[in-house]
Amino acid sequence: MSPEHNTAPVTPPEQAAKAILARLYTPILPELRQVEEMYRRELSSDDEYIANLLEYIEDYSGKKLRPALLLLAGKACGKLTQDHIILGVVAEMLHTATLVHDDILDDALLRRKRTSINALAGNEVSVLLGDHIFSHAFEISLECTTPVGAREFSRAMARTCFGEIMQVHNRNNFNLPEPKYFDIIEGKTAELYATSAMLGAHYAGANEAVCRAFYDYGMNLGRAFQIMDDLLDMIGEESLVGKTLGSDVEKGKPTLPLIHHLEQVNGAGRKKALEAASKGDRKTLMELLHETESFKYAAAKAGAYVASAKNGLDVLPKGDMRDLLHEVADFVLSREL
Amino acid sequence: MSPEHNTAPVTPPEQAAKAILARLYTPILPELRQVEEMYRRELSSDDEYIANLLEYIEDYSGKKLRPALLLLAGKACGKLTQDHIILGVVAEMLHTATLVHDDILDDALLRRKRTSINALAGNEVSVLLGDHIFSHAFEISLECTTPVGAREFSRAMARTCFGEIMQVHNRNNFNLPEPKYFDIIEGKTAELYATSAMLGAHYAGANEAVCRAFYDYGMNLGRAFQIMDDLLDMIGEESLVGKTLGSDVEKGKPTLPLIHHLEQVNGAGRKKALEAASKGDRKTLMELLHETESFKYAAAKAGAYVASAKNGLDVLPKGDMRDLLHEVADFVLSREL
Repeated sequence: MSPEHNTAPVTPPEQAAKAILARLYTPILPELRQVEEMYRRELSSDDEYIANLLEYIEDYSGKKLRPALLLLAGKACGKLTQDHIILGVVAEMLHTATLVHDDILDDALLRRKRTSINALAGNEVSVLLGDHIFSHAFEISLECTTPVGAREFSRAMARTCFGEIMQVHNRNNFNLPEPKYFDIIEGKTAELYATSAMLGAHYAGANEAVCRAFYDYGMNLGRAFQIMDDLLDMIGEESLVGKTLGSDVEKGKPTLPLIHHLEQVNGAGRKKALEAASKGDRKTLMELLHETESFKYAAAKAGAYVASAKNGLDVLPKGDMRDLLHEVADFVLSREL
Repeated sequence: MSPEHNTAPVTPPEQAAKAILARLYTPILPELRQVEEMYRRELSSDDEYIANLLEYIEDYSGKKLRPALLLLAGKACGKLTQDHIILGVVAEMLHTATLVHDDILDDALLRRKRTSINALAGNEVSVLLGDHIFSHAFEISLECTTPVGAREFSRAMARTCFGEIMQVHNRNNFNLPEPKYFDIIEGKTAELYATSAMLGAHYAGANEAVCRAFYDYGMNLGRAFQIMDDLLDMIGEESLVGKTLGSDVEKGKPTLPLIHHLEQVNGAGRKKALEAASKGDRKTLMELLHETESFKYAAAKAGAYVASAKNGLDVLPKGDMRDLLHEVADFVLSREL
């Protein structure tokens, strides 16, 4: 994609993305189906009201990138086991729980083009439903043959929350240095990718160096993903992204293009950009950021992380699975996952 | 206590309650100190902002009844181990996390007479901070020598959330039948007590029957506690309880005295009570509930659960620890724990 060119749709249509993923997921399709089935089974309750809520949020589960990463990493390192299925479900449930809570944070009205759970059932229920899903995910993780998955996912989630808190705390802090921006996105986004990929390798019997390589692979993918997500929030189209748009800037969240722009301009330029941001004058802001090629800068950063992700897989033997994991990394650049 | 008599303070002063607990906690004092120290150590962060938040909510940790129950149950069944310390910390952290999230649900301005974390840092940070504490508690629980504690506490938390969701869903449902009321409080309150007591026994090597007896003990204590909490919300004094008062009725939460009253009166009486409740006319509501002895009824129910809790401990040999656990049960009736 070339986010620097204009504000027109920059992502391939939803359908094309789905087709690409369907192809990338081919080697793990039977196991991914098992993950989906178990996920549905586990999101249930005897109470009719709660059962309906859980059924409703099943839809939050989108492209299942986290379980897919976990399964692909496992497949690349050896044999997939029941532990992979369980932890695939855990990864997706933890992600779902964060989405449910994120909707409260974002005051989002839409999630995947449907009414979000907080708009539907209120913030109180959303908090509790997310808490339930967190707790149940941890419960499920203990069904594995070893506690490594439970330990790593609980550690990852604790870090994820810290990343999100730092993000909220730095709202409207347009002096946020780039390293702190990365601290935040590594926590709030990349950690769960990294842990998923690492655990996939671990439960397929990979040695520590390979596990570490997969952790880094997921981390780099997550960084690239979040940068692309920030970009799409500014330049995507609501119809494509399926969520309320431009909310990052409106909510004062310093994103990478904006951070880059503010580091490039002088005092007057800075004032101009912050004024446009605070007014929600998206058109002016877009023009200013294009002038400093800040979208281009952010896209290049995402590209560099994808390249690192791919290079890190040199620990694997050449072959189909390594090629496929390279393609998965490239896919992050092509659209919101 | 005699909650049916008037609206004057019904709890012994805070200091007296503390003195009673200090005595009840004597046999487990060194271990409780270890729990407190580890709890403080674990609620920390390199990020200054987050570290300050965590330090602030250390104060949420009040009488530490859940870790104390766990330790007392362990002491009654055998030797206390490092597993007990770890799980005591977990019990307290899970409780703290629910308090942090409850403040959002309650829109509470005060918690233990201090500004609540949501009033201080906003709902977003409160959601995330609670999520962090949940995740970290699960992480810590995996430091035990066996995964039983992690499994039981994650199961318990998942049920706790369901109980809370049912409570929100039944707000303003004044046709709530008493059994459903108990479903709700068993989930939202009693499950964590029950699991704490059961795990204390389990990790001291108790057999299944004794573990089950401690689970039931905690469950009955929890039921009694929640009934007393509901009572205190209606008839306590803000200065004593240290949180915003009468909020249950204002928020349309059907409590046991109200449920009982509505089951006793005819259509006209029902209308009168619901009008008073919906207007927040506490004085009228109190008078009506006194007429049907509904506070007395609720207090008697709490008393019956305390009696059951005590009887269930007949599996233990007679002795100091059993006597002390009886006293702990009685204490529930004396005030909010």
